[in-house]
Amino acid sequence: MRSTSPPEAFPAHTPAASQIFTTVLSHGPLTRSEIAGRTRLSAAAVTKAVRPLIEAGYLLEDVAEDGRQPALGRPANPVRVDGGRALFIGIKMTGDELIAVLTDLCCRIRVARHVSLTSRAPRSVLASTAALVQELLTEADGFGVRVQGIGIAVSGDVDRSAGVVRYSPFLEWRDVPLAELAGMTTGLPVTVDNDVRALTVAEQWFGAGVGLSDFALVTVGAGIGCGLVVHGQVVAGAHGVAGEIGHVAIDPAGPLCDCGNRGCVEAIASDSAIVAQVREVTGVRVADAAAALDLAHDGDPGAREVYARAGEAIGRGIATVANLLGPERVIISGEGLAAYDLFAEQIRDAFGAAAFGSAAMCDVQTRPLPFEEWARGAAATAIQSFITSEAH
Amino acid sequence: MRSTSPPEAFPAHTPAASQIFTTVLSHGPLTRSEIAGRTRLSAAAVTKAVRPLIEAGYLLEDVAEDGRQPALGRPANPVRVDGGRALFIGIKMTGDELIAVLTDLCCRIRVARHVSLTSRAPRSVLASTAALVQELLTEADGFGVRVQGIGIAVSGDVDRSAGVVRYSPFLEWRDVPLAELAGMTTGLPVTVDNDVRALTVAEQWFGAGVGLSDFALVTVGAGIGCGLVVHGQVVAGAHGVAGEIGHVAIDPAGPLCDCGNRGCVEAIASDSAIVAQVREVTGVRVADAAAALDLAHDGDPGAREVYARAGEAIGRGIATVANLLGPERVIISGEGLAAYDLFAEQIRDAFGAAAFGSAAMCDVQTRPLPFEEWARGAAATAIQSFITSEAH
Repeated sequence: MRSTSPPEAFPAHTPAASQIFTTVLSHGPLTRSEIAGRTRLSAAAVTKAVRPLIEAGYLLEDVAEDGRQPALGRPANPVRVDGGRALFIGIKMTGDELIAVLTDLCCRIRVARHVSLTSRAPRSVLASTAALVQELLTEADGFGVRVQGIGIAVSGDVDRSAGVVRYSPFLEWRDVPLAELAGMTTGLPVTVDNDVRALTVAEQWFGAGVGLSDFALVTVGAGIGCGLVVHGQVVAGAHGVAGEIGHVAIDPAGPLCDCGNRGCVEAIASDSAIVAQVREVTGVRVADAAAALDLAHDGDPGAREVYARAGEAIGRGIATVANLLGPERVIISGEGLAAYDLFAEQIRDAFGAAAFGSAAMCDVQTRPLPFEEWARGAAATAIQSFITSEAH
Repeated sequence: MRSTSPPEAFPAHTPAASQIFTTVLSHGPLTRSEIAGRTRLSAAAVTKAVRPLIEAGYLLEDVAEDGRQPALGRPANPVRVDGGRALFIGIKMTGDELIAVLTDLCCRIRVARHVSLTSRAPRSVLASTAALVQELLTEADGFGVRVQGIGIAVSGDVDRSAGVVRYSPFLEWRDVPLAELAGMTTGLPVTVDNDVRALTVAEQWFGAGVGLSDFALVTVGAGIGCGLVVHGQVVAGAHGVAGEIGHVAIDPAGPLCDCGNRGCVEAIASDSAIVAQVREVTGVRVADAAAALDLAHDGDPGAREVYARAGEAIGRGIATVANLLGPERVIISGEGLAAYDLFAEQIRDAFGAAAFGSAAMCDVQTRPLPFEEWARGAAATAIQSFITSEAH
């Protein structure tokens, strides 16, 4: 099978060449002079870096406007990435299932699969992962294009550079060298990252963060997460913790959080917090977040009040991020957006009231997040590693 | 007068040369190969950049260990910055006075002066500034070295790249093009920056932030400020607001803040907040922060309780910074440290309780801050502009 042969090296051997390719990937098609302008590299450096990328098929030169075939290297012709040139696999691991996608080089999903986990033991999860990867490699054969790498996203404390899951509460893992283990079972380069940071990479390279040097992605759902891009780079934290907007404590009289503090944003606005509060306020034994949402959508005033308080907590958390970092944009996403109509106004009002001065000028957007987007985020980290040659 | 002749250009004409000089300034003495290692530049590039800096007297080559005169360019000889090669003026503007320092190129204070302001009108403040600068230029003549630039630090919303004070509540200024105006009256290049960010530059280049890519400086006193360095650069905020730890709202039932919200860190822990709370709790009409501090130091339990609450608020604000950004170090400084014995324990405890997971591993330090340090911070921005050629 072609797709299981060893991956090829990406023909960009300098940081400048990686930067040029990334620029075309996020902003293309671009002419060479536009690339030079955006990267602040010389026209000669751009021309030199672009040639082997065209020769290897990663960049395509567009046909000139008069319809003639392009003269190779003619500076006025725009170049763009050939998304079909390489495939990647992205996997999101939760405590219950694996969600996997096969994407092209432009991070467009070609195939999506998921499988339930029968056990959370690393050995068992790795066996399920290997089987799922094999399935996707077979699919990849149909495209006649090689899979160049795998990205795996896990919630919790993940050391991407070491390839190690330091602590994942949902998987109940501590210090699992996941990149190395998954690399051995699949034979492909593996990048492991925290799930929210992986999603942030996808937004930075392919989504609402393109072209922004400073933005935040806030995910609302089972947890309340936050990915931060500052000065053009994803913030990882000196000790592995960053973006913990869920544990910004906004009310010392608020509900107790799993972390031991009171009034964390997550203790007020996560799915499980909302379920617990709806049960307490309404007396209805709602089974899960979907049932709580139904009750609120049916007009139950107690349930609606719980969502309103959740929105206020999220808005105050976002204002804290804006007051400290002053991002250009905050993107709110996550499964919790299913309830957005119930708390959009409270998010907006609380953010507006708590944002300090011109921090309120920050552009707050929402983006739907189908669950396979988490796996797509993982694929984005694999694409990033492939281009910058940093996978395990 | 030599010092009022036009400033000379710094002989580092490329970003790499600026980076090399900055590296020696913060970490020197260093050998050329140590410089190459730290900057990830080639040995040839370092040798090429170092030569004109030695020739112009900005770098000195140390005598070899055997006591012989150094052979110029011998790679094993360490080089260091000659601090006495250039002088800079740093000015901190408050609503009441100007504090100014004359520093050398290594940001060591040579002379300090201050003058009271009779009016806050820009014209009047500029006249006082020009007179103070003239005094310091006369002092500089005594050193026989030229003053190469002026840094001015102002609290509030300052756009450094435009050289404009957008809004300064203490000075009651809006949109004052201070860099241009002060440049005209003094004939020297002027850098204008927010006071906390200026102090952060001083810590990054010459203080407790040297060698750290991610740290925070928290200033406690009339206000509660925070300078952030992320990925090696000071965070300025897309809309001019960043580091507003003073307006992190930690208690919706807390005291009303000037910003309109309740329970901001500044509404609990700033000098004026402490004075107001001590008056309320003790019934004693303390005149100012010093009187409140005396009362607490005399053992008044109500006053001590106010300081304890202030410490808790500061600790929770610092934990919020740590949870979002995961800095390697947080440096607490400011005039408010005079009360540090009254709230050190509460800062530590509240930080430890509210920091999430390994974010608690962040190194929290204190640094005394004599008031002229604010002016030294301004001088640091002038040194930075001189080296990177970005002053107005």
